[in-house]
Amino acid sequence: MSATSLDQLCINVIRGLSIDGVQKANSGHPGLPMGAAPMAYTLWTRHLKHNPRNPSWFDRDRFILSAGHGSMLLYSLLHLTGYNVTLDDLKAFRQWGSITPGHPENHLTPGVEMATGPLGQGFATAVGFAIAERFLAATFNRPGHYVIDHYTYGICSDGDLMEGVASEAASLAGHLKLGKLIFLYDDNGITIDGTTALAFTENVEARFAAYGWHVQKVDGMNVEAVDRAIGEARFTTDRPSLILCKTTIGFGSPNKAGTSKVHGSPLGPDEVELTKEALGLPQEAFYAPEEALQAFRTAVDKGADAESDWDRRFAAYRAEFPDEAAQLQNAMLGELGPDWLEALPVFTDKMATRKNSQAILNAIAPKLPTLLLGAADLGESTFTVLHGMGEQSAEEPAGRNVNYGIREHAMAAAQNGATLHGGVRSLGGTFLVFSDYCRPSIRLAALMECPSIFVFTHDSIGLGEDGPTHQPVEHLAALRCIPNLNVMRPCDGNETSACYKIALELEKTPSLLALTRQDLPVVSPATVLEHPAEQGAYVLAEAEGGLKAILVATGSEVALALEARKALQEEGIGVRVVSMPSWWLFENQDQAYRASVLPAGVPTVSVEAGSSFGWAKYAQAHVSLDRFGASAPAGTLFKEFGFTPQSVCEVVKATLE
Amino acid sequence: MSATSLDQLCINVIRGLSIDGVQKANSGHPGLPMGAAPMAYTLWTRHLKHNPRNPSWFDRDRFILSAGHGSMLLYSLLHLTGYNVTLDDLKAFRQWGSITPGHPENHLTPGVEMATGPLGQGFATAVGFAIAERFLAATFNRPGHYVIDHYTYGICSDGDLMEGVASEAASLAGHLKLGKLIFLYDDNGITIDGTTALAFTENVEARFAAYGWHVQKVDGMNVEAVDRAIGEARFTTDRPSLILCKTTIGFGSPNKAGTSKVHGSPLGPDEVELTKEALGLPQEAFYAPEEALQAFRTAVDKGADAESDWDRRFAAYRAEFPDEAAQLQNAMLGELGPDWLEALPVFTDKMATRKNSQAILNAIAPKLPTLLLGAADLGESTFTVLHGMGEQSAEEPAGRNVNYGIREHAMAAAQNGATLHGGVRSLGGTFLVFSDYCRPSIRLAALMECPSIFVFTHDSIGLGEDGPTHQPVEHLAALRCIPNLNVMRPCDGNETSACYKIALELEKTPSLLALTRQDLPVVSPATVLEHPAEQGAYVLAEAEGGLKAILVATGSEVALALEARKALQEEGIGVRVVSMPSWWLFENQDQAYRASVLPAGVPTVSVEAGSSFGWAKYAQAHVSLDRFGASAPAGTLFKEFGFTPQSVCEVVKATLE
Repeated sequence: MSATSLDQLCINVIRGLSIDGVQKANSGHPGLPMGAAPMAYTLWTRHLKHNPRNPSWFDRDRFILSAGHGSMLLYSLLHLTGYNVTLDDLKAFRQWGSITPGHPENHLTPGVEMATGPLGQGFATAVGFAIAERFLAATFNRPGHYVIDHYTYGICSDGDLMEGVASEAASLAGHLKLGKLIFLYDDNGITIDGTTALAFTENVEARFAAYGWHVQKVDGMNVEAVDRAIGEARFTTDRPSLILCKTTIGFGSPNKAGTSKVHGSPLGPDEVELTKEALGLPQEAFYAPEEALQAFRTAVDKGADAESDWDRRFAAYRAEFPDEAAQLQNAMLGELGPDWLEALPVFTDKMATRKNSQAILNAIAPKLPTLLLGAADLGESTFTVLHGMGEQSAEEPAGRNVNYGIREHAMAAAQNGATLHGGVRSLGGTFLVFSDYCRPSIRLAALMECPSIFVFTHDSIGLGEDGPTHQPVEHLAALRCIPNLNVMRPCDGNETSACYKIALELEKTPSLLALTRQDLPVVSPATVLEHPAEQGAYVLAEAEGGLKAILVATGSEVALALEARKALQEEGIGVRVVSMPSWWLFENQDQAYRASVLPAGVPTVSVEAGSSFGWAKYAQAHVSLDRFGASAPAGTLFKEFGFTPQSVCEVVKATLE
Repeated sequence: MSATSLDQLCINVIRGLSIDGVQKANSGHPGLPMGAAPMAYTLWTRHLKHNPRNPSWFDRDRFILSAGHGSMLLYSLLHLTGYNVTLDDLKAFRQWGSITPGHPENHLTPGVEMATGPLGQGFATAVGFAIAERFLAATFNRPGHYVIDHYTYGICSDGDLMEGVASEAASLAGHLKLGKLIFLYDDNGITIDGTTALAFTENVEARFAAYGWHVQKVDGMNVEAVDRAIGEARFTTDRPSLILCKTTIGFGSPNKAGTSKVHGSPLGPDEVELTKEALGLPQEAFYAPEEALQAFRTAVDKGADAESDWDRRFAAYRAEFPDEAAQLQNAMLGELGPDWLEALPVFTDKMATRKNSQAILNAIAPKLPTLLLGAADLGESTFTVLHGMGEQSAEEPAGRNVNYGIREHAMAAAQNGATLHGGVRSLGGTFLVFSDYCRPSIRLAALMECPSIFVFTHDSIGLGEDGPTHQPVEHLAALRCIPNLNVMRPCDGNETSACYKIALELEKTPSLLALTRQDLPVVSPATVLEHPAEQGAYVLAEAEGGLKAILVATGSEVALALEARKALQEEGIGVRVVSMPSWWLFENQDQAYRASVLPAGVPTVSVEAGSSFGWAKYAQAHVSLDRFGASAPAGTLFKEFGFTPQSVCEVVKATLE
């Protein structure tokens, strides 16, 4: 069999498996795999550095199928190249309990780097993978020792490129000159509702050139053309690369190719038959002939060789640079070591928690050499900046501060990418109200079990004069309801230290810190390494003279609750104050602990400068803000909206009556 | 005084007022007004068609300050040109109860078209204003009668153009060839964290050209240059226009101009003094000399003339086209008339609520000639498409279906713009899970009291095989917590009809309909014009033989609750089923009604295929989904996740014990 006809067979086998997977599931997206099979085949067999038998080999190239709806393309490739994805797994596509869900999920399937499907996310997340690679390479490689040296590849679709998050990320990647980021754009001209002429007529080439990308345009159905373009893109290391691959969606289907009919529905049995005929495939379902398998499975030996070559090179590196090697090893394993814990500051002075955060980050950063910070152009306000540790750029690739620009969504996605890449922990800051802008990526972090750390400041009307467009009200509720997201709102510097400890130690859960603009007194224990905040909620001040009521508060309102408690105690009303920085942590405690902190039957009032939404679970009455805020000095707002000791006392008394 | 020196005086008066407003408030953003004063002055005095004494004159040009942090620029212009914004209002900038909040809010201040501040929103919303203008013009103008004929102008900043939502909107506007949309870009090279070189080095000119925009680049400090460019942009009606205006942020400040120091902080008293000296202004605070006022206030007479000229032209139009004029008049007043109500369908057959929605929309659309629909490339799935009513485009400007492309965020923002513009009601569809992508615009609709209608389908794990990235779980909770947002999840076709009635009749509250992919039986009353859903929640099935428990359910789970009730009644347990399509509506009912539906002390179980977050307010136990979904057929998912009559019955019984 000639090389060309073997290529063609392999490509058609991908198509056949994808068609069959979708047909058997009776749902899914056959069109993309059929059109993008040649480019994916070319990338995976001629360029991608990977080891199917060890999907977590650190120096592998990363591959992101941003157009996650084409998941059967990825599953077919994983199966064919020798990952632990069997033909039976392909046959269980989209079924309960399978490792081949409708859209790829990294925590289910070996070889899947991230969950994709929500369009634009894969593209933007890939930018974070590339940032992590460049940062680690610059930090650890030494002349003659290139232990970190891999590419981030992706395939994206029209839909990805229409999404704002991808635009933000593309502009950021161009600015950062991420030369080892290479995207193949499956330019098939078709979306769900019809041709892209309906809604997408911009000049993508010119747009990406404007962002500073290296742009090529090729026949995406031509293996040699795609091969050359990828080679050119790999060679072009001063800019990210976009390769526009003109393809035919649903290629091979006599009656549906090139139409939206083949985008999101099975071909149907008759068209499957005709398509296989047209492609020269036998009718056998899930056909994977030995000669194609043999060709694909050369990836196994090549991968093993690549990894053992890297092992040798890493050993040489370790011999010459033992300290760096040890650090890198820890980073790759996600081990933080003990030193940073001792650096966690204890606080005594009144301070805004955003400033506590700054002090904490700058104290621990020297002990955590691969902690990457960043801000969406609000570093001057969020204080998520490491002093003297450089700004990430082509000129300073070891810089630990990423200027994301006013691109909150791309920031959160890129944080996920850097975190999923491994070797780094990524932390990014903006205002809490702008969590709305990056919500799809925050959700995806939670779904992907990716422990990104979001540091969101200006967490209430305490923001003051900027007014309701900038004041979070419902945001704590809206974030707490995301599964597997640890939202923390510390009440002072010591809780903030404890929250950083918690966030950095979580391995499968992203954390979000909500921090104040305004000063808060220190009210919580100085034992930041064994802080009761780790239980999510705890008794900060016990009732004296019999427990009559509980005030459960978070963040800036904990001090307010303490003041109210004092006034109530003076009137002989025994009040307990519970500080509750994290619902998620609290809900992970056992029932006995939870009942000890918030016992049933005791009148409980929540105090939080935000929506009462959700608080009925823990309290019968609320000091809350169930409307949009207003523009005025913070002190005025707290007073006008009833966040005073007096009004808290009144609510408690009303509850007791 | 020569024209030039009068221009200069007027520009400096804007600067002086802006500086003083920020200084007096001791917070705010002086830099943008100081740099952008010349371009804003040029636009407002030489081009903008408006009537300061009637800010709601329908055929005015719309002006959007997308960079809302420069609010003092807008307030100064409103005051100077004769709107009901006094010097005292300027002095109350950013104070409690003032009409000059930190960022502009349309419902507070005459002449403010929308709330801006969250970057990118103004830009994207302006696209909707321009769509509405073109649609209304195409629908109502007749040869020789151009009763709808105005421009949408805006000023945007670096930050706006970095935001993904603006990228989506720019691509959409270019695609739609919105020739009467003109943005001036305050290209000052400075953001909060420093120069744009830190994070924003793309070629904006080339990017917008790639989107299909007409792009010019001028000296933004030069009135004549800006004037010519706006003229050119107005003349170029086949494409939207972007005018890059090179400016100096904080112009006039000897020590801070051109730096990030002047972006978001007051100049300080000393620098205010020096700046006024440099600008040739007296030190007097809030200086607005008679000659400048006179020049600006010509806007009052010009505006009155323009409006009365339009009144005459409208009268001529009415004389010749009485039906069209009456329709347009209604549209301008936001009056829907009675005909559409009678067209609201009643349903008897099992159907997915997304299909009920389709039937409803196509039934009422002929009676609501300015109802604009649209979808973010999911029209084939959301069914938010009007058959035979054209696709909005330059070629078909009266088309009532907008293909937004895979740009959910720009869709929601543009919907807000079209709705705020007036004359149309705008409705857009995507999957409920993608509400995350457009959340900032949904929030802004609620804050702006803008009654946009969001129709989001595939509202639970009922979506099936596409899996957890596409299955909403926490979204109902996350949306319900937004103040002034009416989230509705109807249980069948009749409730869906009723929900459309409610949504269209709300004038200051946006509505969001959560609709199913899967079929639902008809279970609610056929009285769609007086449907109990209008109370938000109601007793759908009363307990028989004594009320023992209540099942409160929404949407697709109402039928499930009815099944469970039947089984429980058979065991002699009296169970009431409450259908609760809208928390917001229910919470607007009086206490007596609420207590009659959900009386205290009766064991209550919520049933909703989503997060239990928030439900503790109404129920003590929950049949809910407090984790991410999974990829499998919908029926399997409902069963595996406990949405069966049997498991509902078990939860009820456990609650009774």
